[in-house]
Amino acid sequence: MSSGVEAFDAVDVIRAKRDGGAVPEDALRWMVDAYTRGYVADSQMASFAMAVLLNGMERDEIRVMTDAMIASGERMSFAGLGKRTVDKHSTGGVGDKITLPLAPLVASFGVAVPQLSGRGLGHTGGTLDKLEAIPGWRAALSNDEMTAQLRDVGAVICAAGSGLAPADKKLYALRDVTGTVEAIPLIASSIMSKKIAEGTDALVLDVKFGSGAFMRDVDRARELARTMVALGTDSGVATTALLTDMNTPLGLAIGNANEVRESVEVLAGGGPTDVVELTLALAREMLALAGQPDADVEAALADGRAMDAWRRMIRAQDGDPDAALPQPRETHVVAASADGFVSRMEALPFGIAAWRLGAGRARAEDAVLHAAGIDLLVKPGDAVRAGQPLFTLLGHDDTRFERALDALEGAWEIGDTPPAAAPLVLERITA
Amino acid sequence: MSSGVEAFDAVDVIRAKRDGGAVPEDALRWMVDAYTRGYVADSQMASFAMAVLLNGMERDEIRVMTDAMIASGERMSFAGLGKRTVDKHSTGGVGDKITLPLAPLVASFGVAVPQLSGRGLGHTGGTLDKLEAIPGWRAALSNDEMTAQLRDVGAVICAAGSGLAPADKKLYALRDVTGTVEAIPLIASSIMSKKIAEGTDALVLDVKFGSGAFMRDVDRARELARTMVALGTDSGVATTALLTDMNTPLGLAIGNANEVRESVEVLAGGGPTDVVELTLALAREMLALAGQPDADVEAALADGRAMDAWRRMIRAQDGDPDAALPQPRETHVVAASADGFVSRMEALPFGIAAWRLGAGRARAEDAVLHAAGIDLLVKPGDAVRAGQPLFTLLGHDDTRFERALDALEGAWEIGDTPPAAAPLVLERITA
Repeated sequence: MSSGVEAFDAVDVIRAKRDGGAVPEDALRWMVDAYTRGYVADSQMASFAMAVLLNGMERDEIRVMTDAMIASGERMSFAGLGKRTVDKHSTGGVGDKITLPLAPLVASFGVAVPQLSGRGLGHTGGTLDKLEAIPGWRAALSNDEMTAQLRDVGAVICAAGSGLAPADKKLYALRDVTGTVEAIPLIASSIMSKKIAEGTDALVLDVKFGSGAFMRDVDRARELARTMVALGTDSGVATTALLTDMNTPLGLAIGNANEVRESVEVLAGGGPTDVVELTLALAREMLALAGQPDADVEAALADGRAMDAWRRMIRAQDGDPDAALPQPRETHVVAASADGFVSRMEALPFGIAAWRLGAGRARAEDAVLHAAGIDLLVKPGDAVRAGQPLFTLLGHDDTRFERALDALEGAWEIGDTPPAAAPLVLERITA
Repeated sequence: MSSGVEAFDAVDVIRAKRDGGAVPEDALRWMVDAYTRGYVADSQMASFAMAVLLNGMERDEIRVMTDAMIASGERMSFAGLGKRTVDKHSTGGVGDKITLPLAPLVASFGVAVPQLSGRGLGHTGGTLDKLEAIPGWRAALSNDEMTAQLRDVGAVICAAGSGLAPADKKLYALRDVTGTVEAIPLIASSIMSKKIAEGTDALVLDVKFGSGAFMRDVDRARELARTMVALGTDSGVATTALLTDMNTPLGLAIGNANEVRESVEVLAGGGPTDVVELTLALAREMLALAGQPDADVEAALADGRAMDAWRRMIRAQDGDPDAALPQPRETHVVAASADGFVSRMEALPFGIAAWRLGAGRARAEDAVLHAAGIDLLVKPGDAVRAGQPLFTLLGHDDTRFERALDALEGAWEIGDTPPAAAPLVLERITA
């Protein structure tokens, strides 16, 4: 196999990682480039990925790998904007709509928030899916439209073009079928290659742990957060991470249209306390990286500045912020069987149930039902009476309700005492 | 991906091995079968192979993996012969012609030796290439011809049909390009699947270590030997291994025609002491497994019984044991530059030099030059005078001589004292 300049051999690169060493920079760059071009076979990259998973990568290798993935595609720049740019990335959770109130909130302080997002796959929803519940709103923007919106509105949430880090797309699909998704150096380079290629000055990471998170284990989540903060920093992007709890769904809405509704509540100065808390915590981190460590983010929610930015952001992408959101055709209420305290509501089964109701997709080409999902009526710690509604399933047909209820078997508990309080933001990780 | 009965998922199998566990028997059988049929992708098997290389396999997993590879193809049986069958396998070396005198020697005791062999690739020669130097001799036999020859002559050395363990062929080609050749469980299952499928009752392994061997490191060679002895035993084949030194070429002939000549010298009761020693040691092991622990193997070489079996074996495959062997068109003698003792002759560079002269092939479809190779005139320990010939290169053209001499740079040494004697047979490994 040859890639024009045949300077390296894939087997040598695989062996170096297999035998526990660091792959030299030029060899690693060659490997990524040759794989993207098709000169290194899937089988060779799969073997390499497994060696990375089991033997790890040094900090500098991760930076080089990421840079090589960025070099496989387009690199955006917002240097001409005259504004600081700061982005947020969440590793994904159940009920995680934080981007929706967060981007306009931060933009209301004169900071540009270029939030390139994806659609959901599996039980974690996608930000674009949620926003597409708004009539007229469109996710696809040209680079010129994106730049104009960042200049005029400050916040843009749109689909990442396929031009960013195409190597990542190819490698991720391979990892998905070869048992190598869980390699922290590869997770970090996958996430960060797209964020760095996007051209943001600064980045705040919401790295989640717990039942509804990609990383269930807090130690692995911390390792991923540290790896990504180091990688962002080494790549010239000011990066901070918050390690946040995803054992319980975030807020009361799990779905698409209902998560938009809840986000608007937060922007109107209300909303569930956990969603508000995390929105404020992430906004403070983003604004600190943008040079405004003392920004009064609570005031911007209270006085309507954030809501104003939201409305302009939605309108700029042809959405109608005043339009009615899609409603479910059917609902099904689940009630408490006994008096007591809600002691547990497990994020993963609630996410799976919402997915089965149609809020998420099983295959990339599937459509989502924007009205489908789950509205929680209580949260862990709340006192309930027997017969009191706990949550409402939202959907379009009864067979889906049955499958959703199957997923929810054992997903919540009512006990004699309220559960011990666990902090939502466990740690802050900085360079 | 589906294989008719879709009982398992390749990613689950990969994950089990990746996370350090043993793969359940049914899942492992499914993985090998589905890979052979093409339902598991090369990338998935490559990732699995790397996980095996880094995390190992338990003894029972190796047995199951091997059995699944055997089940992918034909399984031979010589149960109807009315003779004990015993085979030998060498992991390959430089000047390793032992099969040639060994098979007829053992057969001369009434034991059947079904020696399915391969052609050489790289610096280690292939037994079939050597025998094909004999005019008329043919390697390809039908199963019926093989059975008849085992009954009538006792010894048969022929090409392994492609029907034996086709999974191994596919997996070996994959390992070759994915940096996973070195996984001991996979080496063991590759070698042993073909030997067990061949239907032999017993097997003696010549596992070599040192510069000219596949395993340079003695500890790795010992691990491979122990793994294969356990695997053979667990699979119902009585198996013993000898751990033998391959730092120095075996005998004085490296090539094809010259190795046949040297083998005939051994069968005539002469030949180099190391070739005789190893032939006798392996013959004793084979005959012990065949129920003749006290067989006088030296007598069979001395009194012509082994030679007689050789001549019948060659004739049965249309070869002429009395025909002249191919001669090189050109020779090049290398002489000692000083008085002293030959202190070192490194197997690997001599093997590479013989290969470059045309005795071996770079690609499976290449032909070999049967007359090409190297004749050693001295061995380590021999006293030499300046100007005394050390070895002769045999070949067909001068440009190949230059490339062979390049390979031999630094490959031998003449010192003031003879080297310390190292045992040829280091250890005997039994179940």
